[in-house]
Amino acid sequence: MKKYAVSIVLCFSLFFLSSPASAQDTVMQVSTIDALVAGLYDGTMSCGRLLQYGNVGIGTFDRLEGEMIVLDGTVYQVKADGRVYTPDPDVKTPFAAVCRFGADDTIDLKEGLNFKELEEAIDASISNKNLFYAIKITGTFSYMKTRSVPAQGKPYPPLAEVTKNQSVFEMQNISGTIVGFRCPPYVQGINVPGYHLHFISDDRARGGHILGLETDTGICALDRCNQFFLVLPTEGEAFQKVDLSKDRSKELYKIEK
Amino acid sequence: MKKYAVSIVLCFSLFFLSSPASAQDTVMQVSTIDALVAGLYDGTMSCGRLLQYGNVGIGTFDRLEGEMIVLDGTVYQVKADGRVYTPDPDVKTPFAAVCRFGADDTIDLKEGLNFKELEEAIDASISNKNLFYAIKITGTFSYMKTRSVPAQGKPYPPLAEVTKNQSVFEMQNISGTIVGFRCPPYVQGINVPGYHLHFISDDRARGGHILGLETDTGICALDRCNQFFLVLPTEGEAFQKVDLSKDRSKELYKIEK
Repeated sequence: MKKYAVSIVLCFSLFFLSSPASAQDTVMQVSTIDALVAGLYDGTMSCGRLLQYGNVGIGTFDRLEGEMIVLDGTVYQVKADGRVYTPDPDVKTPFAAVCRFGADDTIDLKEGLNFKELEEAIDASISNKNLFYAIKITGTFSYMKTRSVPAQGKPYPPLAEVTKNQSVFEMQNISGTIVGFRCPPYVQGINVPGYHLHFISDDRARGGHILGLETDTGICALDRCNQFFLVLPTEGEAFQKVDLSKDRSKELYKIEK
Repeated sequence: MKKYAVSIVLCFSLFFLSSPASAQDTVMQVSTIDALVAGLYDGTMSCGRLLQYGNVGIGTFDRLEGEMIVLDGTVYQVKADGRVYTPDPDVKTPFAAVCRFGADDTIDLKEGLNFKELEEAIDASISNKNLFYAIKITGTFSYMKTRSVPAQGKPYPPLAEVTKNQSVFEMQNISGTIVGFRCPPYVQGINVPGYHLHFISDDRARGGHILGLETDTGICALDRCNQFFLVLPTEGEAFQKVDLSKDRSKELYKIEK
């Protein structure tokens, strides 16, 4: 009976240590950013399954209905009405990236940094810009500007069209967490090279895709990830038909900032 | 005791079904093609570990010493002397891609196809060009032209310099297996967009990176892979220092063809 118990423990240890579902230092991503930019908003992976791959991350939802923040194993949905929801596990995402967060490094952030200066402060403490970094910043922000977008109807317009009518939210002296990734340059077409950060307030009432900010007090935790696990959609014809040979980097830059 | 045995079986089933080491439809890759093009030839993953991720694939070896073919779970090394070796499991690779091959589709190949026509024949049977395909072609080739390269010394020259002095091998009426991948366009910088194929003869005496060919009889087996697992080097400073923001696609094209 003791051997039986030991083997069961061994079984689950091996499973959780070795599966991509929980591999440390692995960024797991659903679909590609260029597919999203092109207007592929149908969800392909449930939030429930997404959480098997990580407990921290960002993304969007089926029909592009809001901005996703994954924090401490909970999926939050900031809709265009400015409110934060916790979607059912069967709600799907067309694009998201998560990791099982384990901080390798932390940085005390200076007061008064804007978005660009925050990126520079993180850059200064990153030795290997050719790897992936998951980012979790807890702090208070004297200013935070975010956006979200409403659910889209078919035929889906491209993302650059949608963001022309995005909802923008401005907050002052707000405590919360910034979550996201710094990706290496060669992910162009697959993810966003550089920084892509979302925000959620401590009271889980506000948040979104970050457009601007100013730090007050904050600590940035970094998880260096040397593994990248990409899961591409196989159902339906949208992913099959989209032209992913086109350079959409300029279009993406306009959408992100 | 029976329960103990059942749990052990369950343990290993879960492990092998769920780990990236053996996930079906997953292309696992070591490092990036642009790092190799830039001259990063120090091996970072052992052949033994590589085989945990797949039984079919291609790559190169520590110090760029020859062309790798992984077939039916064996790693073959075609050196610049034209001979084929089976390296020790602890020999390392700086760049390789493998998968656990399971054919989704097979194509009977016409006689007399050259390299370009072979690619077009495969293209014609691929419905989703935005996914990855592992390729295994068994057949007889009225003509086969391959290359290999010798081990390099430090400071490593870029790959385009090395291939200027590559060994080229021409074979007639040779039976063997072509192994490789068709990658989607958005892998630019990470892997080779389109086809990248190596050859090994049935008698395991000849092979290399394919430069040209003509089919006689052949069957092409395709494994559609919707998952891509990238493992980046973490040791040493070479991968940290290399500029991977540069567009090396023209340089790569010259090297590959």
